[in-house]
Order: sequence, then C-alpha cells, then structure tokens
Amino acid sequence: MKTPKEGEMFTIDFLSQHRVFGGVLYFIRHDSAATQCPMTASVFVPDADEQRTDAPFPVLYWLSGLTCTASNFTEKAGAYRKAAELGLIVVAPDTSPRGDSVANDEAYDLGQGAGFYLDATQAPWSAHFQMESYITRDLIEMVETNFPADPGRRGISGHSMGGHGALTLAMNYPHLYRSVSAFAPIASVLHAPWGEKAMSAYLGPDRAAWERYDAALRLSQGKGAPFDDILIDQGLADSFLDSQLMPDLLEQAAQAAGQPLTLRRHAGYDHSYYFIQSFIDDHLTFHARRLKA
Amino acid sequence: MKTPKEGEMFTIDFLSQHRVFGGVLYFIRHDSAATQCPMTASVFVPDADEQRTDAPFPVLYWLSGLTCTASNFTEKAGAYRKAAELGLIVVAPDTSPRGDSVANDEAYDLGQGAGFYLDATQAPWSAHFQMESYITRDLIEMVETNFPADPGRRGISGHSMGGHGALTLAMNYPHLYRSVSAFAPIASVLHAPWGEKAMSAYLGPDRAAWERYDAALRLSQGKGAPFDDILIDQGLADSFLDSQLMPDLLEQAAQAAGQPLTLRRHAGYDHSYYFIQSFIDDHLTFHARRLKA
Repeated sequence: MKTPKEGEMFTIDFLSQHRVFGGVLYFIRHDSAATQCPMTASVFVPDADEQRTDAPFPVLYWLSGLTCTASNFTEKAGAYRKAAELGLIVVAPDTSPRGDSVANDEAYDLGQGAGFYLDATQAPWSAHFQMESYITRDLIEMVETNFPADPGRRGISGHSMGGHGALTLAMNYPHLYRSVSAFAPIASVLHAPWGEKAMSAYLGPDRAAWERYDAALRLSQGKGAPFDDILIDQGLADSFLDSQLMPDLLEQAAQAAGQPLTLRRHAGYDHSYYFIQSFIDDHLTFHARRLKA
Repeated sequence: MKTPKEGEMFTIDFLSQHRVFGGVLYFIRHDSAATQCPMTASVFVPDADEQRTDAPFPVLYWLSGLTCTASNFTEKAGAYRKAAELGLIVVAPDTSPRGDSVANDEAYDLGQGAGFYLDATQAPWSAHFQMESYITRDLIEMVETNFPADPGRRGISGHSMGGHGALTLAMNYPHLYRSVSAFAPIASVLHAPWGEKAMSAYLGPDRAAWERYDAALRLSQGKGAPFDDILIDQGLADSFLDSQLMPDLLEQAAQAAGQPLTLRRHAGYDHSYYFIQSFIDDHLTFHARRLKA
C-alpha cells in the first residue's frame, strides 16, 4: 500500500491528514485537465491491516449538494466508522471549480458551489464548469493512481444536487459505477426550479440538451447497468421535497423501465446532514454488498 | 414528555430542530443570570417511544474546546447514533458568553470562545465570564425544566479546554455529576501556557486563586465523588500534547489520591474531531453504564 506523506507530491498535494476509526482521512488538492483549475477532495482510506488484506479497496464516491465544499460530508456525515468496518475508500470531491479566475454568480444555486455535475457548453461557464468530465475521469484517475483503490469496484452516491449527480452519472456511465444510491436527490432538472435555472445557464435554452442530465428521464429510458437495485432515502419534513426534489418521479420512471428502485420515505427528517448521518450506514452497507460481491 | 415546538417560549427560544437517529436535536437560546446574556446550546433528546419508557433520561453534558460554539460537537462528533441507542440526552453548550457588549480579545485563546468554565473575578471579564455558574446552575436548570431529563443522573465530558472544564467541575461539584470523562484535556492550567494566560486574565496574578481550576491538582487533593473510574482519551499525534495538555499529570495525580483513572493513549490520532468521533461511543457507553446503574 502506498502511504503518501503530508506535503509529498505525486500528481497531488496532500493538504492534511487525520487518523479516524483506524483509517486515514486525507484532504488533497490536484490539478484537473477538465476544470482547468486545482480541485480539492477528501479521501478516506481504511486501515489495510485491520482488513487483513493487501487487496485494493472498493471506492464509494460521494457528491455533495448546493453550497457544499469537500468538507461538509467529510465533517458531518459520520460515515467513517462504518466505512472502516466495511473496508471502503470514501471520496468526497468539491461541488464545482473554484477560484478568482473561475466564473461565479451571487446566487447560491449557480456558479461556484453549484456545478451540477455536468459539462457546461455556455460562456462564461464552459471554461471551467466541466464537472461531469472531472468526476468521471480526472477524479477517478487521481484516486486510482494515488490510493489503494480497486478500479473495477466503484459506487456513487450523493445528496440533493449531488444525488442528481450520482444518479445521472451512473445512468450515463454504466461501465464506471457498479452501485448507485442517493439522499433527497433532485429527481428531474427539467421540472425543478434549481434545475431549470442551472441548465439554462450552463447548457443554454434548448431543453433537449438538458435531457441527458435529468435523472428521472434517463431512468425511464432504461439507461444504466441495469442495477439490481437503487437505494433512495427521502425525509418527509424536507422543505424542498415538493418544490425541487419530487422523488415520486424517480419511482414512476423506475417502474416504467423495470428498474428496481427502493425509495424510503422517513417521517420527520429534513434536508440536513442530520438526516444523512441517520441513514448513511445503510448506504455504505448497500454499496459494500454490491462492490465486494 | 414535553414536546416544545419551534418558536414556542418556555424560558427558552427554540431556534431550530432536526430529527436524527430517531431522536430530536434542538438548538436553543436562553437567558442566563450568571453570564447576563443569551446563551446558545444544542440538546439531543432520544425518542422516548424507542426506549419504551416515559422515564426521564440521564443527561451527558459536553464541554467544547477553544474557539468552539455549540455547533462543533453537535455537527462533527457523530455522537447521536450511540446516544439514541443508549437513551442519553446530550447537551452541548457554547464555550463562553458572546455578543457586542461582552468583553473580547483578538487572540483565539482569550475572551469569546475561551471561557475556561470558571467564574472570572477581574475586569473586564467578570461582568459576563461566569461560565462555572452558568454550566453548574443555569444550564442544568434550563435542561431539567424543558426536557425529559432526570435530575439525579448527570455526566460530564469535554475536549481540550472542555476536558479541563469537565474534570474541574466534576471535582468541584461532586454532588452534581455522577460520571466524568475527557478527550485530550488541559490537565493543569498552572502548567499550560493556555492556562496561565487565561487564569492571569480572568482571575488575576495570585496563583492561589487558580488552584481551584487545576484538574491535576484537584485530583491529587482527592476532590470529587470519588468516581469509580475516570476515562481519558489522548491522541499521541496531538500537536498540543506536550506543550499544553500533559495527561501524565492526571495519571500521577490520580495515583497519588487513589482515584481510579483510565488514560488511553492512541497512536496516530490528533487533536481534531476525527479523533473524538473515533472514540465517542466508548465515552457514551462509559457514562450510560454509570448513569443508568
């Protein structure tokens, strides 16, 4: 197992590291050819000795929601106890390119912190907002070059905008991801105000160009592996449930396409990381079962 | 069980609430006679139905370290899964009085965010920095008036400056707390630069007045319940270990006084909440055993 030291360079900078639950959590920064700027991420690596094996670990990629950086999931999800137990690497990238030279918007739901996991075609966004290529190419390459990750075993999950990202990337890159789940995902960018605003800006007014990024639509078209199951958790006290998320659309689309999907509705839970931490163990177990099978 | 609603007033304001692990996490603000200003705290209440009892819950008070607010532990410690399972209320207060009318200092280790859980006697601090009275009187009263808390069953724990707080309050108020533990506590304010600076400012130059707030000294004097055990966890990669924390002093003091104390040294762990979350379950179990016995 490669053990990078703080400050040591491979193709990445190790910004800091913390021992947690017998493994090590790295905060890293690496250059991305896709976004043309440095990108930050956290990478949790379980202790190989604990797992009594030198075999590479399966990897779960976590995509965060609007306004998040690489830190939100890392600090607040409480995921590493179970990830250490299961022997999963967990990677949490940033939600967009960032920096003074990167286009931005004053609103929280456009620009930096709101990349929507797509490749933008419209100025000024197209110069850096290439998150689809970043997540599916540069991030994977960075992880699999520098950490003891098994290239054949990748899962993807995420929250809200990141749930949209996890679902659409899993549908559009079925060869890359073996398992997919989401918390409170934006089911349909064609129907959600967040989606309409972002798609208009990043992809232009032609709604046909948006369809590739609509989770419910791609699901209904039978895109994807197929997966033996897709796990979705949704809080019923989530203030964005009806206006932005619309998980019923996912259920209907999956049924239409004959794609198994488990949508769990949780009374009283909201859109916060307190909801995510309450059910993250179930998602880690869901992915581990499929990635370690 | 009392179920306060958001915005409803008893003696406190309910700022927000989140369902988490079947319980509810409340952020509250209440006026304190001790600090003469509004104080914020988080209070986690397990689901009484899950516990199949209407009996009041034992309460663990968590005191945070320098620079922290009520949010750090609440967001980052990952404590509520186990607290829900054990049926523990967990209370995380702020680390100092705050506000424009409250004295402050530019340094991170004095003034707001650095209350040191003592009653200041020196101007300008004495007007509001009465954290010892706040924690042992007003906070307890607020919790036991507004939540289903059992007055007879209180434990106390904390981190760094909050570990110092937990140990000294447990020694000085043995009738209030039945169990005590700490993560990386400041063992001796008489020996730590953080302690010397804060004690000088809050209590003045007479070092005799500081002794009441020196955990190792109080321990060596046989102050306290006695407790059947005191649990201390310390990371060996903690950058403050030798310069500020000095846990060996606690071990020596406990031995001198015949007070059982378990000091666990963890290779590779640092001073962060990643260390705390890795071992918080052990502390919750330690307190639950003693509070539910």
